[in-house]
Amino acid sequence: MNNMRVRFIPIGGITDVTKNMYLYESYEGDTLRDIIIVDCGAGFPRAKELGVDLIIPDISYLKDKTDKIKAILLTHAHEDHILALKFHYKELGSPPVYASKLTMYFVKSRFDEVGIKARVIEIEYLKQYEFGDFKAQFIHTTHSIPDPTHILLSTPVGNFYHGSDFKFDLTPPYGSPPDFYSIVKAGNDGVLCLLSDCLGADREGLTLSESVVGQTFEDLIRMTKGKFVMTTFSSNISRIRQCTDAALKFNRKICFIGRSMRQNTDLARNINYLPINPKFMVKEQEVSKLPPNRVCLIVAGSQGQFGSALSKIADNHNKFVKVGKGDKVMFSSDPIPGNEPDVNDIIEKLYYLGADVIYSDSEGEIHASGHGNQDDLKFLVRFTNPKYLIPIGGTVKLQRSYRTLMNSLGYPDERVVLLNDGETIWFEKGKTYQGDKIQVKNVYVDAYGIGDIGNFVLRDRRTLAEEGIVFVAVPISSEVKLISDPIISSRGFVYKGDETGLFDNAKKIIAACFNNPNGGLLTKTTVERSVIDMLEDYFKRETGREPLVVVEMLDL
Amino acid sequence: MNNMRVRFIPIGGITDVTKNMYLYESYEGDTLRDIIIVDCGAGFPRAKELGVDLIIPDISYLKDKTDKIKAILLTHAHEDHILALKFHYKELGSPPVYASKLTMYFVKSRFDEVGIKARVIEIEYLKQYEFGDFKAQFIHTTHSIPDPTHILLSTPVGNFYHGSDFKFDLTPPYGSPPDFYSIVKAGNDGVLCLLSDCLGADREGLTLSESVVGQTFEDLIRMTKGKFVMTTFSSNISRIRQCTDAALKFNRKICFIGRSMRQNTDLARNINYLPINPKFMVKEQEVSKLPPNRVCLIVAGSQGQFGSALSKIADNHNKFVKVGKGDKVMFSSDPIPGNEPDVNDIIEKLYYLGADVIYSDSEGEIHASGHGNQDDLKFLVRFTNPKYLIPIGGTVKLQRSYRTLMNSLGYPDERVVLLNDGETIWFEKGKTYQGDKIQVKNVYVDAYGIGDIGNFVLRDRRTLAEEGIVFVAVPISSEVKLISDPIISSRGFVYKGDETGLFDNAKKIIAACFNNPNGGLLTKTTVERSVIDMLEDYFKRETGREPLVVVEMLDL
Repeated sequence: MNNMRVRFIPIGGITDVTKNMYLYESYEGDTLRDIIIVDCGAGFPRAKELGVDLIIPDISYLKDKTDKIKAILLTHAHEDHILALKFHYKELGSPPVYASKLTMYFVKSRFDEVGIKARVIEIEYLKQYEFGDFKAQFIHTTHSIPDPTHILLSTPVGNFYHGSDFKFDLTPPYGSPPDFYSIVKAGNDGVLCLLSDCLGADREGLTLSESVVGQTFEDLIRMTKGKFVMTTFSSNISRIRQCTDAALKFNRKICFIGRSMRQNTDLARNINYLPINPKFMVKEQEVSKLPPNRVCLIVAGSQGQFGSALSKIADNHNKFVKVGKGDKVMFSSDPIPGNEPDVNDIIEKLYYLGADVIYSDSEGEIHASGHGNQDDLKFLVRFTNPKYLIPIGGTVKLQRSYRTLMNSLGYPDERVVLLNDGETIWFEKGKTYQGDKIQVKNVYVDAYGIGDIGNFVLRDRRTLAEEGIVFVAVPISSEVKLISDPIISSRGFVYKGDETGLFDNAKKIIAACFNNPNGGLLTKTTVERSVIDMLEDYFKRETGREPLVVVEMLDL
Repeated sequence: MNNMRVRFIPIGGITDVTKNMYLYESYEGDTLRDIIIVDCGAGFPRAKELGVDLIIPDISYLKDKTDKIKAILLTHAHEDHILALKFHYKELGSPPVYASKLTMYFVKSRFDEVGIKARVIEIEYLKQYEFGDFKAQFIHTTHSIPDPTHILLSTPVGNFYHGSDFKFDLTPPYGSPPDFYSIVKAGNDGVLCLLSDCLGADREGLTLSESVVGQTFEDLIRMTKGKFVMTTFSSNISRIRQCTDAALKFNRKICFIGRSMRQNTDLARNINYLPINPKFMVKEQEVSKLPPNRVCLIVAGSQGQFGSALSKIADNHNKFVKVGKGDKVMFSSDPIPGNEPDVNDIIEKLYYLGADVIYSDSEGEIHASGHGNQDDLKFLVRFTNPKYLIPIGGTVKLQRSYRTLMNSLGYPDERVVLLNDGETIWFEKGKTYQGDKIQVKNVYVDAYGIGDIGNFVLRDRRTLAEEGIVFVAVPISSEVKLISDPIISSRGFVYKGDETGLFDNAKKIIAACFNNPNGGLLTKTTVERSVIDMLEDYFKRETGREPLVVVEMLDL
């Protein structure tokens, strides 16, 4: 068939790193034949997006094409590559899912949470899988989680090398180094287009091996007199294992804190990816019974997420686990771009409690990125020798950096295709050209379910109509002290009693939010959150209504 | 044949970097069958070895085995890999020599110098050459000279990957990146032993690409008001080309100074590896007729060799070419370990003349090593996945560093074989063991010919017997001023006239050596050399005899 075409569509994952989801479509002329989906991950809300739990890719485009979807291929088990699948799986027509071992276990457990029986197939490396017009071969690579893969996708117009999140780790602490032979062989057989991780495109050199972090854990744990607390992504099983291995060496018991952390580590322990003798495990409730230097806590919330296990410890709101003088808290992860203020907030609070905090800016080699730096990225290109390049998994800025880097390898701009989410590109034999843009929106997930931003507006409107709204302006100093009376006004908040008395009490409640009985450090965000929580509770208790409470902290 | 064995012998190249020469021998039981020689390079004397021009490998071991030598394979055109061949070729039984293009031209030109007609064959990459029990395949790699190769040697007991001098340059300024496919394929087919360059084994990261130096040349030349002078190894054709390319951009004419520099660049220009339009060339004699900012001098002597073109310029002894204020001298090479004092001496002198000097310690990225750093070395091991490793081309210290580095990749000490020159190792199917040590001595080359150190002693004795000896002790201050009368005494120096008068004059001659009429900086070495030269001349003129003149500078 000479009129075959292939279209590549990033549904998500390009402009904001997370919620990765990519489509490869084959066409005969204008007729869509087959679709392969690579990854289906979640994004994570910033502090500004209060009330939102997750952001997931918008699959509206696929709704009338589910019969064409031949398979969903997952590259690795990080949540920004798999977590959205449980929300979308049925709507995608329940296609078979292919994944490496750990990824398979993780995604199955996600499906279990929502009661979905999915067809998840554990892949064999290098086996040729046939999916209609496509053939796929999984290639072992290295990243910050076990069993990461790259995918060589043969299509009617040429081979695509889907180089998802990776770094070339020559000394991975667990598992084998990248399968260089298969990578280079793909290049020798001919690659039309390389889709490449670009998150490290503005960092020089090669990325550090995961192994260097293992030594750092040992050194830090040896020197810590009190509790050793480590936080990282809860899916970062290799990193967690390096920490537990080091802690066990120094006779510390392990306590996992946070729902996602417990869930992921349970799973990894079950398949022996995280070997810890049960007698060296300790429950949150029993931590305080052990001498501090016999405990290692591994805590979720490394991105400073509000309400996370770490955030609660930093606010001194965890009933069982307290940190303070002599304890050491190690952030073994870098903030995702945009999360820096939230992370810094937590760091401030931990210092305030008297703990010592170790984070990327403070010391070397406590975190090795899972993503390849410039030299890793250049090697991948020299290995696969593609005609075209598309940077994925990075921001607009990082895509640009990637293009500049590729210029240095002799690739002109027109060979390095920069796309935004929803932008498409066609490949035909001998040529390539831009396609129509697919409409993609941010889809939010919260306690109520899934919806687009419109739904939130509707929900707000409904609340406004039925319950009204209360505006609160809180004047504070730069030291986060209340410097004069808060101003409260309302619209549509129908209250049959004395509104003045109600609001006077509200002001007292607000003032009380500036006293932390647990002795944690108060930041603007903490106070703002607790004002909202306290007022919502108070109004509901007093009036039976749930008005929208909008708080503005006036930093004077 | 089940009783086949292979022995590897480093004749030279292991303990002191230079004079590389390696043997691979095949045996049936105890019967030697075939020998392959890889490289035959020269070493370079230190300042202490006065009167010696070159050091070459000791081939005594091979004298009665020339009928077994099937081929000499050359990895690249650097002198420490090819320059000894012209001295040894006939004694080795004139076997065929295989080399890549530039290497072939270089080695042919060396043979021409001594009137040898040798069989030098230009290799085809990846072709299988058969040499008795051995098969060889040349693989393209990258280094600081065009056309460098690695050699995959198939033997009756397994494959050897001879990973001579290299770095993984992903952006070589001229020529293509390394042939990763063939390297990795060799690993996939199975490598018994990797012989690896280890010169960069204690430097972290990846080695810089040669390309980075090109930009530096442009920046420096743009900012230089006077003459631009560059010195590097005269065989470093890529580096020289980057400099001439940059100089031509800024309308400077090129002048090559020094015999080896002119010889190598003529050759490279003839085969278009160094394209310079003849009208942009200028002779030494005409440099002073051009405005300083229209000249770029490329000068031999980057290792501070006494008597080299650069050393003469630094001593202000070059009749035509003077450097001074406004001129910039760039050392685009690092000193070979041991040569640092000589190089510093030259740098001091150039500063004294008023020139600005740029060298590795002074600025970044003016020299990229041609040798792989730790990450390059680790990649090669991951690519080839060998059972055994032997570091070559480095010092004892660097061999140790290499072993430690390989420990980090999981290779235990017993898999990383450290050899000294002449030490041998046997490989049989399934095992390996140490062999007898071959006697190797340093063989020196000077104006009189080739000999071992014994010959030099004999020559001294002969001179002593026939001409006598003169001892001179010269008391100097730390500023290299003569602080009292030299002391002169002699033995066996038969002079029929007034020895006192002769020695009084000699003292005046010595004193005169402390005045440099050309205004160059005087160093201890310079004065010592000129005292010897002047006294030898003077005694010969006055007495017709040539006593051995031994000078001791007494630094008081």
